[in-house]
Amino acid sequence: MLRSKVLSLLARGASSRMMSTGTKLTTVEVNDKTGIATLTMCRPPVNGLNLELLQDLKTSIDEIESNKSRGLILASSNATIFSAGLDILEMYKPDKDRIRAFWSQLQETWLALYGSSVPTAAAINGHSPAGGCLLATSCEYRVMLPKFTIGLNETQLGIVAPKWFMAAFLSVLPQKDAERALNQGRMFTTDEALKVGLIDETANSKEEAIAKCEAFIGTFAKVNPLARSLTKLQFRAADLGQLEKERKEDLEKFLFFINQPAVQKGLGIYIEGLKKKSKKQ
Amino acid sequence: MLRSKVLSLLARGASSRMMSTGTKLTTVEVNDKTGIATLTMCRPPVNGLNLELLQDLKTSIDEIESNKSRGLILASSNATIFSAGLDILEMYKPDKDRIRAFWSQLQETWLALYGSSVPTAAAINGHSPAGGCLLATSCEYRVMLPKFTIGLNETQLGIVAPKWFMAAFLSVLPQKDAERALNQGRMFTTDEALKVGLIDETANSKEEAIAKCEAFIGTFAKVNPLARSLTKLQFRAADLGQLEKERKEDLEKFLFFINQPAVQKGLGIYIEGLKKKSKKQ
Amino acid sequence: MLRSKVLSLLARGASSRMMSTGTKLTTVEVNDKTGIATLTMCRPPVNGLNLELLQDLKTSIDEIESNKSRGLILASSNATIFSAGLDILEMYKPDKDRIRAFWSQLQETWLALYGSSVPTAAAINGHSPAGGCLLATSCEYRVMLPKFTIGLNETQLGIVAPKWFMAAFLSVLPQKDAERALNQGRMFTTDEALKVGLIDETANSKEEAIAKCEAFIGTFAKVNPLARSLTKLQFRAADLGQLEKERKEDLEKFLFFINQPAVQKGLGIYIEGLKKKSKKQ
Repeated sequence: MLRSKVLSLLARGASSRMMSTGTKLTTVEVNDKTGIATLTMCRPPVNGLNLELLQDLKTSIDEIESNKSRGLILASSNATIFSAGLDILEMYKPDKDRIRAFWSQLQETWLALYGSSVPTAAAINGHSPAGGCLLATSCEYRVMLPKFTIGLNETQLGIVAPKWFMAAFLSVLPQKDAERALNQGRMFTTDEALKVGLIDETANSKEEAIAKCEAFIGTFAKVNPLARSLTKLQFRAADLGQLEKERKEDLEKFLFFINQPAVQKGLGIYIEGLKKKSKKQ
Repeated sequence: MLRSKVLSLLARGASSRMMSTGTKLTTVEVNDKTGIATLTMCRPPVNGLNLELLQDLKTSIDEIESNKSRGLILASSNATIFSAGLDILEMYKPDKDRIRAFWSQLQETWLALYGSSVPTAAAINGHSPAGGCLLATSCEYRVMLPKFTIGLNETQLGIVAPKWFMAAFLSVLPQKDAERALNQGRMFTTDEALKVGLIDETANSKEEAIAKCEAFIGTFAKVNPLARSLTKLQFRAADLGQLEKERKEDLEKFLFFINQPAVQKGLGIYIEGLKKKSKKQ
Repeated sequence: MLRSKVLSLLARGASSRMMSTGTKLTTVEVNDKTGIATLTMCRPPVNGLNLELLQDLKTSIDEIESNKSRGLILASSNATIFSAGLDILEMYKPDKDRIRAFWSQLQETWLALYGSSVPTAAAINGHSPAGGCLLATSCEYRVMLPKFTIGLNETQLGIVAPKWFMAAFLSVLPQKDAERALNQGRMFTTDEALKVGLIDETANSKEEAIAKCEAFIGTFAKVNPLARSLTKLQFRAADLGQLEKERKEDLEKFLFFINQPAVQKGLGIYIEGLKKKSKKQ
């Protein structure tokens, strides 16, 4: 795919812009002044990444790419949650076919976002655990609102973040910090995330966060988009190529792990906890 | 080995705990409150890593793993030396068979420590050059007492630290710092080591160092141990796999190098110096 | 080549020193007190890296290696430009044979500098864009004069810095910083370069910069040169081996890219701009 991606980038001619119609669980808005697209996740209550949201994310990323937007800003319509990560209901007592489709789509969506040819930034306007953190670290820049948390907390749930979650995290943090955080399943507060370099800036509102993401994307204004894309792809080729080569193996590994009785039991307890918590509120 | 390690981690059931009986050159003490094991090297005068100490280290690591300890803290019974590194007497005018066993055991012990499934931390209560630094950097956390030194100073002795010493060092420091330090054979003071990130904390006594290591291991209290082990292994798989694949080649390379007349001569001069120094004291 | 390089390092006996006669576009001066060689680029007006300068650089690096100099300091005879990078005239409407020789020589010269067995440092006494930055980041240490700029700004020219430019840059900066800087084609001021770690020190004059480079090379005074070389090579073997393996592919990739009409057009516009600018002055 990398080779064909490079060739398609080289071949791509001018294409007409069109306003996004959006899909069910995501919306795409293009700022006419800047040409930058904001891709918003809107799957209540917590932007849990289920099969449909992942499909819509992929469709929206493709649309932004083919519309020749000047950049992609990932955000959430929820006031306190960026994305709660993978939808646990997809993994608990899963349907055999659907869970395969779910994980394959997660791979697909990640390959599209991490390898996107346009500049990408995340406006993290809420908590961003696990899969939410994966999306954020797959972008090139991160601006976060205060008093939220971000991190790959899989080990706290008895799950192992796959190699490519690790790769995205390592594209942002040094090895020692990355390994330690993943081993701990550590959730960083906004301040901690800024200090360690997991995010690049903070902002006091979603609007300010998006403005700062736009400013970052603006640093590419005088840069040749094709040369930029190929340069970015060169940095990320090893990570992308690794998953592309191991997609089947990665899927089987996930299925083997998720079907362990102990893991299913852990997910069950976790879901019970969520239910009780939600009843109390 | 990695695959079988993963499977054995997955299969491992509950096992009864037992107090360590210790081996000749190492002791293992399990804190009943915390469930954390302290593995102490005690080979006077300087914890030189000879064949027997390396064997005992490996046995103790295995014991701590199979006892399901909550963590491993590596320390020294010596008041001023953590470990002086590889015992030079193993390398100077070596017996043909013993030196092969020695190096193979060093590989084995490192694979066990660097790849250990339990959380590991080093309480560096003394100088920690060369092989001592290898042990420390193979742990996940380092707490060091003031006014000691740590580093891979092989080049100062005319020796080349093998690729896997480099890998452990690179798991702690950025590439530029790691390469420069190894090229220089640089020994860092406690303060310098803290500043560059080679150690994580300082402590004023061995007890305090062990307490800080316990606090680090305590950060995993709410983490699923299996998920943690697999996550750690995923970060370290490339380094571990590299040595596993090249063990024979690595051994031959070491033997070729150590048998160079210039290297033997250098070691001879170094040993003479040590003897004179020890007579003066 | 790596294997043969290691063997030749092991085999190398003492060799007599001789004062360099220099070549046309570079000079080599050995400091008799320190034994350190200063390799100066002197191709007016801007040390553009054309075929001949690259050849002379390679010859001088080889000479410094075989003379057993204690170190190599790379500098410029120009008061405000270290090197303006690849000579664009080599790439614009290129002669079919010459451009192949040019790129092959660039590969050759880089392999010699990045893999040099002696300690290397760059006294960056002027602007250092693109290929100039490649040379600087291929050294082990960088001292820069104030108010100049350094960076891999290829994307600003519509060009993609090849994988090995990226490798040299990554040997100095963390992945996140490196990727972002290359995507942006960012030129760092001296102060910014110091802050991010792209350079190690600043100096107020070329003499002071060279003195600081000498001080860095002096840190290896007590180190066994052979062990040092092999250690450095071990850190850089993957990067060097990658290009050695892909030299032909890398050449073809460059030729394919540089011959794109859009790239040629961009270079033409850039050259016109330079001409106008130079007329104004």
